[in-house]
Amino acid sequence: MDSTISTHDRSRCADRDANDPLAGFRSRFLLPDGVVYLDGNSLGPRPVGAAERAAGVIEQEWGEGLIRSWNTAGWFELPRRLGDKISRLIGGGDGEAVVTDTTTLNLFKALSSAVRIQQQDAPGRRVIVTERDNFPTDIYIAEGLADLLNSVGGGYEVRLIDDELSLEAALDDDVAVVSLSHVNYRTGSMWDMASVTAQIHDAGALAIWDLAHAAGAVPVALNAADADYAVGCTYKYLNGGPGSPAFIWVNRRHQNRFWQPLSGWWSHARPFAMADGYEPDNGAGRFLCGTQPVISLATLECGLDIALEVDEAELRAKSLALTDLFMELVEERCAGHGLKFITPRGHEDRGSHVSVEHPQAYAVVSALIERGVIGDYREPGAMRFGFTPLYTSYTDVWDAVEHLRDILDTRAWEAPEHQRRNAVT
Amino acid sequence: MDSTISTHDRSRCADRDANDPLAGFRSRFLLPDGVVYLDGNSLGPRPVGAAERAAGVIEQEWGEGLIRSWNTAGWFELPRRLGDKISRLIGGGDGEAVVTDTTTLNLFKALSSAVRIQQQDAPGRRVIVTERDNFPTDIYIAEGLADLLNSVGGGYEVRLIDDELSLEAALDDDVAVVSLSHVNYRTGSMWDMASVTAQIHDAGALAIWDLAHAAGAVPVALNAADADYAVGCTYKYLNGGPGSPAFIWVNRRHQNRFWQPLSGWWSHARPFAMADGYEPDNGAGRFLCGTQPVISLATLECGLDIALEVDEAELRAKSLALTDLFMELVEERCAGHGLKFITPRGHEDRGSHVSVEHPQAYAVVSALIERGVIGDYREPGAMRFGFTPLYTSYTDVWDAVEHLRDILDTRAWEAPEHQRRNAVT
Repeated sequence: MDSTISTHDRSRCADRDANDPLAGFRSRFLLPDGVVYLDGNSLGPRPVGAAERAAGVIEQEWGEGLIRSWNTAGWFELPRRLGDKISRLIGGGDGEAVVTDTTTLNLFKALSSAVRIQQQDAPGRRVIVTERDNFPTDIYIAEGLADLLNSVGGGYEVRLIDDELSLEAALDDDVAVVSLSHVNYRTGSMWDMASVTAQIHDAGALAIWDLAHAAGAVPVALNAADADYAVGCTYKYLNGGPGSPAFIWVNRRHQNRFWQPLSGWWSHARPFAMADGYEPDNGAGRFLCGTQPVISLATLECGLDIALEVDEAELRAKSLALTDLFMELVEERCAGHGLKFITPRGHEDRGSHVSVEHPQAYAVVSALIERGVIGDYREPGAMRFGFTPLYTSYTDVWDAVEHLRDILDTRAWEAPEHQRRNAVT
Repeated sequence: MDSTISTHDRSRCADRDANDPLAGFRSRFLLPDGVVYLDGNSLGPRPVGAAERAAGVIEQEWGEGLIRSWNTAGWFELPRRLGDKISRLIGGGDGEAVVTDTTTLNLFKALSSAVRIQQQDAPGRRVIVTERDNFPTDIYIAEGLADLLNSVGGGYEVRLIDDELSLEAALDDDVAVVSLSHVNYRTGSMWDMASVTAQIHDAGALAIWDLAHAAGAVPVALNAADADYAVGCTYKYLNGGPGSPAFIWVNRRHQNRFWQPLSGWWSHARPFAMADGYEPDNGAGRFLCGTQPVISLATLECGLDIALEVDEAELRAKSLALTDLFMELVEERCAGHGLKFITPRGHEDRGSHVSVEHPQAYAVVSALIERGVIGDYREPGAMRFGFTPLYTSYTDVWDAVEHLRDILDTRAWEAPEHQRRNAVT
C-alpha cells in the first residue's frame, strides 16, 4: 500500500463507499460482473425492472390489448406523462415538457420556434449562435435550418463561438437565438446557465440549452434560470435504454405562442378529428409530431422513476467527489505518462465526466475496455470517463485508475488488437 | 343454414380456410383468445419471438454489452439493415431505404429534398400538391414546410386535390412535388402508382408515395413505377410493434444529390470524426438523423422477417378474397340497416381494408369491440376493418359479419356504454 505517500488508498475508498448515502442505488441497476462502467454518460445501464416492463408492454399492452391500449394502457398520454417527470428533474413544471423523437429533431423544433418568435418581434435578427466544440449534430441541425431558410433567401447565418469571451463578442443586434450545451459532451465543461441566459436575454436573443450531458448528472434549474427552451437525451444519465426518445422543454411564456414546422397528428389540438387543417395543441404538446416507440418509452420510465428518488444535492456532491478522486488519483498514480486533463478543475465549471488526452488515447481506451473498465474515446485524442453517482463507487474509481496505470506502465496499449480501430469509435 | 339462399355459409368459409396457402402464417402471431382482429391496418399483432427478441436486446445487448453493443450487436447498422429488408418488400433495392424516425418526419425530409431538387432544376415550381382526404398529418407536414419557407418569403403553396380529375387539373407548371397516399387510410381506395407517377413526371413534378396502408398489404413496386420517394409506417401491416420507427426510400437517381434539413450525426459520412461541418453520407443513409430506439427496431425485425417469407401474389389474392367476402356478406346479411361502403369495389382500386359508413358507426364499432371483433372508427362516420391475410381467416370474416348483423338487428349499439366516446377514438 502506498498510503504513506498518497492521500488515497483502496481501503479509504472502501470507507467512503460504506458511508455513501447513495450507495443503495447501485442495487437498482443490473451491471455485468467484472465491469467498472464509466460510460453511463453515453449509455446508462439497465435498471432492475426494465426487462419486465418491456415484457409487460409487449405481452399485455401490445399482445392482448392491441389497438385498445391507446386508451386502456395510456399510450396516448405517455409522452406528456414522461415529459412531466423529466420536467421535475430539470427545474420545470408540469405541462412544460414532452418526451418525443430525438435530441436532434427537438433542437430543430426549438430553433425553428425561436426563429419564428424573433421573426415576429425582431425580424432583423437572423443569426443562430452555437459552439464550435458543441456536439456536432447540434451544429449540423442549426446549419440544416439555416440552409433551408436560405434556399429561399432567408439570410440566416450560423455563428460559431469558442468560449465566454467570444460569446460576449458574438451577441450583437443580429442574434436571434443562442444554442448551447449546458455540459460539453467532450470536455465536460459547464456553462453557468443562469448568468449566461441573462446575458443572452440582455442582448435581445433567446436561449436554448441542450441538456444531453446535464439532465440526471448535475442540478438543472430551467425556470430559475429563465431559459427559453431545453432539449436533451434520456439514454445517458437518465438510463432510458438504447435510443430511448428525447425530451423538449419550453418556458411557459412561449407555450401557446410558439410554432414549429414538424407538425404531426400527435400535436394537433383534436388529433382524432382528422381535420385537414393543422391546429396546434396548447402547451408543450405542440412539440409532438408522429407516433412514438412505446416499448422504448416504457423502459425509459423505469430510469426516470429511479432518478426522481434521488436527492439532487447528494447526487452533485458525490459526482464532484468521484471526479475529484479520479483526477487526483490519475495525477498521483499515472504521473509521467503524458496524460492531460481537458476537463476544467473548478467544481462550478464542469459536469459529471472527465476527459483526458493522450497520444494513444484510442488504444489505451481499448485496453481498458478489454479489462472491463469501460470508458470511451472521442476525437481528437481524448479518453472520456463518466462518473455516475447512482452506480459508481469510490473503489470503482480506484480500480479504474489502477488499470489505467498498469496499461500505461506496461505499454499494454501497444498490443495489435488495441491498435485496430472499430468502425464505431 | 342459409346456404340455399346465399353464396356463402360458415362451413364454406371453413373449407376455404382449409385450402388457404397462407393459413400457416397464423401461428406466427400471438393473438388473444376470443378476438377477431380487424385492426392490423392500425396496429399489427405481436409476432411470436418479439418478446424474446426484446428481452435479448435488453438483457444481453443493453444489459451486458452496454455501450459496446454499438459495434458488437450491430446497432449502428440496424437502420440500414432493416431498410434493406423493407426495400425488398416494396420493390426497391439494397441501399435505397432506411428505417428511422416517424412517417411524418420522413415525409418532411422527402418533401424538403424534392423541393430542393426543384429549386435547382425548376425554381419557379413552388406548389406542393397533396390530397384533401389524405391522412391529416401528411397535409400538416406539407403546411409546416411551406409555412417555414414562407416565413422568409418562399412563396410556397400547398394545393389540395380530391380525385384523379382534380390531380390532372392541379398539375400545372408551378407544381414541384406531389405527395399521395398509395392506399387511403380512411376509404381504402388505391392510386395506380405506375400511371400516376408517370403523369406526375410528365408534368415536370416529383412523386412521393406514403405507403403507410400499402407496405405489407398490397404489392408495391417502387422502382418499376419509377417513384421518386416513398415513406411509410412499420407498425401496421408489417407488425413492428407499437410506434416502431418508420421508413424512407429514395430512388437511386436522387441518392447522392438530395439534401434534407434534418441533418443529424447518424447521416454524417464520418459520424465519429466529430467534424464541425456537416458532410452527408452517400445513399439512403443521408436520411438518418439522431439516435434511434433500438428495442423498437429489434421487435420490428421480427415482423419484417415474417413478411419477407410471404409470396406477394398469394398475399394479394387472399386480401382480395377476404375483402370481397366481407363486402358480399355485409350486403347479404346486414341488408336494410343503412350501411354504405366508402371503399371502392374494383380490385385495382383498393387496398386491404374496407370502410363502411353508418349513422351510429362509433357506437356500432364499440359494440363490436365488446364482443371481441376489433375494428376501428374514423371520422366522419366510418367503421374501418382491416383484412390482414397472414392471420385473418375466412371464418373470422363470417363471424365478424354475424356479430355486426346481430348488433344491428338487436340495436345493441344503443347501450349507454357504446354511446360514450373515449378520448382516443
